[in-house]
This record gives sequence, structure tokens and C-alpha cells, in this order.
Amino acid sequence: MRAVGAAVGPTRVAELPGREGERVQVAGWLTHRRGHGAIAFLVVRDGSGEVQAVVRRDHAPEAFARAEGLGQESALRVVGPVRAQPRAPGGYEVEVEELEVLSPAADYPIAPKEHGIEFLLDHRHLWLRHRRPAAVMRIRDTVLWAAEAFLRGEGFVRVDAPILMGTAAENTTQLFRTDYFGEPAYLTQSGQLYAEAAAMALGRVYTLGPTFRAERSKTRRHLLEFWMLEPEMAFCDLEGSMALQERLVTYVVERVLERCGEALRTLERDTAPLERVRPPFPRLRYDDAAEWLRAQGLALGPEEDFGAPHETALSQAFDRPLFVHAFPRAVKPFYMEPEPGRPDRVLAADLLAPEGYGEIIGGSQRIADADLLRRRLQEAGLDEAAYDWYLDLRRYGGVVHSGFGLGIERTVAWIAGLDHVREAVPFPRTYNRLRP
Amino acid sequence: MRAVGAAVGPTRVAELPGREGERVQVAGWLTHRRGHGAIAFLVVRDGSGEVQAVVRRDHAPEAFARAEGLGQESALRVVGPVRAQPRAPGGYEVEVEELEVLSPAADYPIAPKEHGIEFLLDHRHLWLRHRRPAAVMRIRDTVLWAAEAFLRGEGFVRVDAPILMGTAAENTTQLFRTDYFGEPAYLTQSGQLYAEAAAMALGRVYTLGPTFRAERSKTRRHLLEFWMLEPEMAFCDLEGSMALQERLVTYVVERVLERCGEALRTLERDTAPLERVRPPFPRLRYDDAAEWLRAQGLALGPEEDFGAPHETALSQAFDRPLFVHAFPRAVKPFYMEPEPGRPDRVLAADLLAPEGYGEIIGGSQRIADADLLRRRLQEAGLDEAAYDWYLDLRRYGGVVHSGFGLGIERTVAWIAGLDHVREAVPFPRTYNRLRP
Repeated sequence: MRAVGAAVGPTRVAELPGREGERVQVAGWLTHRRGHGAIAFLVVRDGSGEVQAVVRRDHAPEAFARAEGLGQESALRVVGPVRAQPRAPGGYEVEVEELEVLSPAADYPIAPKEHGIEFLLDHRHLWLRHRRPAAVMRIRDTVLWAAEAFLRGEGFVRVDAPILMGTAAENTTQLFRTDYFGEPAYLTQSGQLYAEAAAMALGRVYTLGPTFRAERSKTRRHLLEFWMLEPEMAFCDLEGSMALQERLVTYVVERVLERCGEALRTLERDTAPLERVRPPFPRLRYDDAAEWLRAQGLALGPEEDFGAPHETALSQAFDRPLFVHAFPRAVKPFYMEPEPGRPDRVLAADLLAPEGYGEIIGGSQRIADADLLRRRLQEAGLDEAAYDWYLDLRRYGGVVHSGFGLGIERTVAWIAGLDHVREAVPFPRTYNRLRP
Repeated sequence: MRAVGAAVGPTRVAELPGREGERVQVAGWLTHRRGHGAIAFLVVRDGSGEVQAVVRRDHAPEAFARAEGLGQESALRVVGPVRAQPRAPGGYEVEVEELEVLSPAADYPIAPKEHGIEFLLDHRHLWLRHRRPAAVMRIRDTVLWAAEAFLRGEGFVRVDAPILMGTAAENTTQLFRTDYFGEPAYLTQSGQLYAEAAAMALGRVYTLGPTFRAERSKTRRHLLEFWMLEPEMAFCDLEGSMALQERLVTYVVERVLERCGEALRTLERDTAPLERVRPPFPRLRYDDAAEWLRAQGLALGPEEDFGAPHETALSQAFDRPLFVHAFPRAVKPFYMEPEPGRPDRVLAADLLAPEGYGEIIGGSQRIADADLLRRRLQEAGLDEAAYDWYLDLRRYGGVVHSGFGLGIERTVAWIAGLDHVREAVPFPRTYNRLRP
């Protein structure tokens, strides 16, 4: 095998447009080959794109011989002039003059035939090379970048929340626990409380990191390890937060439509529903949503939280993202500000993606008053000492503030049109999967 | 307390320039106050900046009365015309006509006097509000953004590596362990192996996430939870990787110099050493570096890895970042490609930041051949079955590839000129600190 150094590196397939007629060197992996007698067509991918390499026995007999019997995912290098070829994958082809096999492969396990999802996930390290998973990764990348770009344009500062927590904020049964030199420590479920502290320091902040829930659930909406973007804003009420969410989600969808056209086509994603994503998003109070759900025949107790069937029904009933807000206090965490004049309702809003995808954002206005927050901690049976630092945020200049958490995998699953969030993350961690 | 909604929100201090003469509303926290008889000067910070609020007894008697005795970190809202005032912190002042106390504070624990570092870290949730920590957070934010912006400009795709690992890649004594529904799982030390899989799929990728080491070390260079940026490139040798590192580090430093001038001034950072950061960076082979260190009188055994004193000495001897490369195989992990003609040396390079800061990047060319990698796993006494998926990356089209890990906190500590990496992260996790 020869080193292909950056100094003498190959031309990336993504850089072929505009180089028609030039003699180029392309290095990559063999996706598939077709032969017609004295001519072989090799589709080569290099991570940036796919190009067709045309090898003719009479024109390049050595290259033709080397291409014979080359297995899928063999690594190779081809040299020759490039030309546009609308019928070829990627739109270009190289007329091969030289062909070097960098590393031959045989018996590649993922054949063009259909495989079961568990087999593919067992081979996730190889499956990522294929068109669909690679397209999802490009969309994920754009979602992350667009979300951060939007927030930075609004003056937000990135502040990373810690992963290891010295105190269990809520019920420990859904927390991963570890030993921290003799003390118990827990993996974070959310960076929110830390984001609140940082918002009092820097005004507008966000965290972006992995969060964890040790849940035995196997739904298509749950991962045990998932990424969350959590913006938090001082001097901002729920109304302001919802307006920001509308603009953020719209911006992200627009950037994906603009930059990931090929990936969306690969996934056969119908983009019409994405093109309808424009503010303002419709809003329903919890009570109105509950009444509608019951009228549809769905079972829902009084002041009961929505489950997956309720979210699905609501998110199929609207053609764009839907806010449900003014939830019963009883179904939401302790830190949410009560609604003025309706102390049994809190200033919380969930954003449900359409097409049945359901919740992608949960957010609220946080309690600003130290005494009310202390009472809520007591009512929830939480250890006040563990929250002493969180109470400090109200003791010293507590102000109106709001924030929300956007689930990255759920957002990617919706935008990419996936059946399950496990395909929205490179290496999923689910109840029955911890490898590779 | 009144809700200050986004719809009727205050003007951010950062947006005051250019609005001289306008009547504005500013909401924030009282940093400090001075009084001179019938006039009070309140410095108000809102997270985006600081502004001076001038309250005159004869002009605004109610506001003046409310400002009396207002404690540090009280939240307040002032209304009045804004004007440039070069002598005021931030360069602007508001002539107060109205003043509303949103939330009074008393006995704020961080007084202007000197506090010990442990006290300040115990109050990290409040300490972040102060000028120095806030300046560091702005630099950290710019380092993260600039690094990602650079990589994206080079065609890299972000791919998040998993945090929870089903197999312990190396010695488990330095790993945090958790229970995963009856199976042991470990917190990742590096996303590299996953980045390698993704590089074979997408060509140029990077991971950016928290990594963990359960070390009982208390040096100024160690955190137990720290963030790493790990780019990985297919069809790239060590030379190509080092060239990319030079450009990446230079780009990040340039962006900080360009955008964080005020933060650097707050930290009294001498920027001359940062302005010298320009490619090419000097390079020393391990053997030459070892010889030089021994000549300086530092103890170093044959083929021994460098410790903190060696890194400090080397990084003080050069006025820009220094590559040390061609390390002995014995001091480096199993996956590194041997140097052609020198099988006892590996194609690895560490990048040491100057001014005594030491290693900020560790990188290498990875073994491309499946048989050699398998031998190395055996020699290292590692479980081959656990690495079967990693071997697959070579069985199916193994190619020359390289990558590196940039430690975010070490990079921020160097650029910001900090004494200890614990100040380079919002909420540090060290041997003796897991809270807040």
C-alpha cells in the first residue's frame, strides 16, 4: 500500500465539477461495478461523493485486468481525464488510464440485498458508508451547524454543561450512575440548570451535548444517549422563547433544504411538508388539545400528560410544527413559572413536529422567585440542599428567564423523514444496543 | 416582579453603540455602585456588556431613592437617554429617568475582595458573572466556533461519537464505569475509533464532545471531564495531518485575536506570543527533543515518554507551537503506523503550545493494514474480539488515514493565558470537585 499524502493527495470527488478535461487522480472505495465485455464501469466513492470510473480493455489493459473481480469496498486509486456524464452517479466520469488497488476487499458483509435492521446496526461501522446513512449524517451535520449559526447570530454564547453530576436532580431510577472516587455520580439528563446559571452571567447562552436516560423503552422516539441543544435566555418570557423557537426551527429547515438537496433526494424525502415550515406556528393550549384528542376518541385522563399516541394524533392534524402550551402543573417539572391567574397551569410549551413525528422541543419560563422555587422543591420532595446553588440564581438577582431543549436526533429524524431516531445518530445506544 | 417579554424587551448593552441620544430601556444586574452626594453611578451588566447608569437626585428623585442601598447583583431596569461616555465601563451611559428594582439582592457572597480558588469554584454558578470568568467563556466560545468553522470550510462533516462504550478499549482503571441494564459500560476516553469508521464513510469528519478520564491527578493540565475535537481524514498521511493542524490552530488564534479583544484585555493577556502563531511550526523528532532535554539537565530514561516537566521545558524553548514527532512505539497506543524504515518509531506527532503550556494536540497516522493491526492488538494484550469492528475498517478497503485530538480546555487555557485548565470550562470536574 502506498501513502497518498495530502501534499500529493487525490482530487476529492466533490471538487470534480469545473475540472472537465483535466487529468485527475481519485482515490476511494468501490461501491459497485458493471461490466460489458471490454469495458468496466466502477462506481467509486471517496466520502465527498461518487464518480464513475470507466476502464476499457483496449485503452488501459493493465487497469482493466486489475479491475477484474475487485470486491465491493476495495480501496483503489484511478488516474485519467474527467468529463461530465449526466447518466453516471454524481454526474462525472473518469476515463481510466491507470488503476492502483490500494487494498482489495472480499466478502463485504453488506450486500445489495435487503438486510434486517439489527444486522445493519451490528455493522453500523460499515453501514455508514452506504448512501442512505451517509445522507442522514450530512443532514444531521447541517442541522447542528445551522442551529448553532442561528443562535450565534442572535448573540448567544456556547457554554458546555457538565456531564457528571454530583447530585441526582430527579428520580434516580432513570439515571446512569457511576463511582466518582467513592462518591456516587450521575450522567446528566439535561444541561438546563447550568444553562440558567450561565444565562445570568452571559445573557443568552446555549449548551450542546449528550444527555442520558436509563429507560427500558423501545419506542421509535427514544435513545438512551441523545444530543440536546439547550438555549437559555435572561430577560425573556415564554412568548419570547416561542418566537425564537419558531425562527430557529424555520432557519434549520431552510438550511437543510438549501444545502442537502442531494441527501434529501437519496432519502426520497418529500420536501413539500418542509417547505411549509414558516412562522407563526399554530398554538393550542393543553386544555384545548386534550378536548380535541378526546373528541377523536383517544383516551386521556383529566390533567394527564400526553403519550406517544396523543402526540402522533396532534402532529398529524397540522401541516406545520405545533405548539402545545399551558400544561397542567402536575405533569411538568418543579421549576416552571405558573401562568398568571391560573396557578394550576405552567408557562410551558412543547413543539411537535408534523407528519406524526411529535415532540422535538420542550421548553418553559423558569420560576424567577426564590421563595416560590423553594416551595416547589419541597412539594416535589426534592432535597433542598442539592439545589442550594440553583436557588442562589434567584437569591441574587432572579429575573424572568426562559429556555428550551431541542432534541437533535428527533429533529433530524423528522427532517430526514426517518422511521426511527436510532438512524439519526452515528452509533445509537438503545435498551438492547451498546455496540459497536 | 414584572415579566420583561421579548416583544417589549430591553435593549441589549451590546446594541447601544450607534443609539446615542435615543431613550432606551436596559435590564441587568448591578455590578457596583458609587455615589457622590446627589448623584449615583450604577454599573449594570446584562450579559452582553456593561453600561453605566447615572442617577441624579434632582432629575429623578424616585429612581435615586430606589438606587440607595441596592446590593450587588440586584436585578434592575433603567430607562433614559443613552450617550457615549469614554470613562465609563463599556463606553456608554444612560441618564436614568426611571428605575425599577426587579429583584433586590443582599449579601452577595463574592465581594470585591480576594477569595481563595476553592471558594470561587464552590460558587462557580455565581462566579461566572464576573469579568474574568465571563471573558474566558467568550474565548472558549470563539475557540469552539472557529475550530468548527475552519473544518467545515475544509469539507469536514461532524459525526458524534458515542459516550457509552460496551467495551473497555484500554486499561479500565482510568475509566468511569456504569451499569447498562446488567452489562458494564464505560465512559469514552476518545471518539477516535468511531471517527475512523466515519472517515471511511464520509472522507473527512470530526467529533466534538466530552471525554472522561478517572485519574487521581491534580495537575493544572488535567480535568476528569474535558472536551475534545477529533478530526479524522481518509487518504491523508501524518504530514497532511500536521499541515492541517498548523492551519487550524493558526485560524483559531487569529479569530480569537480578531473577535475577543475586550476579553483578552480583561484577562491582561499579552497577545504578542499569540500574534507569532503562524505556519510552519517548528518540528523536533522525539530523539532530538530527548537529547536536548537531557542536555538541559532533565532526567529522561531511554524511550521514556515525556512528563509535564519535559513538555514545559520544550514549550518554553520555542516562541510558537512545536511539533514533537517520531515517538518510540513503546510509549504510544497500539494503532499507530510505524515509521517507514524505523519500526521502533511511530508516525505520531504531539503539538505543544508555547509559554510552558505543553500538549494541546496528540495525533498520528493510523495503521491501515489489518494483519499488522491484529498483531499490535495481540502484543498489547487487548481482546481482539472487542476490536473486531475496528479491524473491519481494514478488512474492507483499509487506506492511509490520520487524525488528531485537540483538547479544548488546554487550548483555551493557553490562548486565554490561564494558570489552570479548570478555569477553561464552565463547571470543572476534577479529582476533588463534582459540584456545583
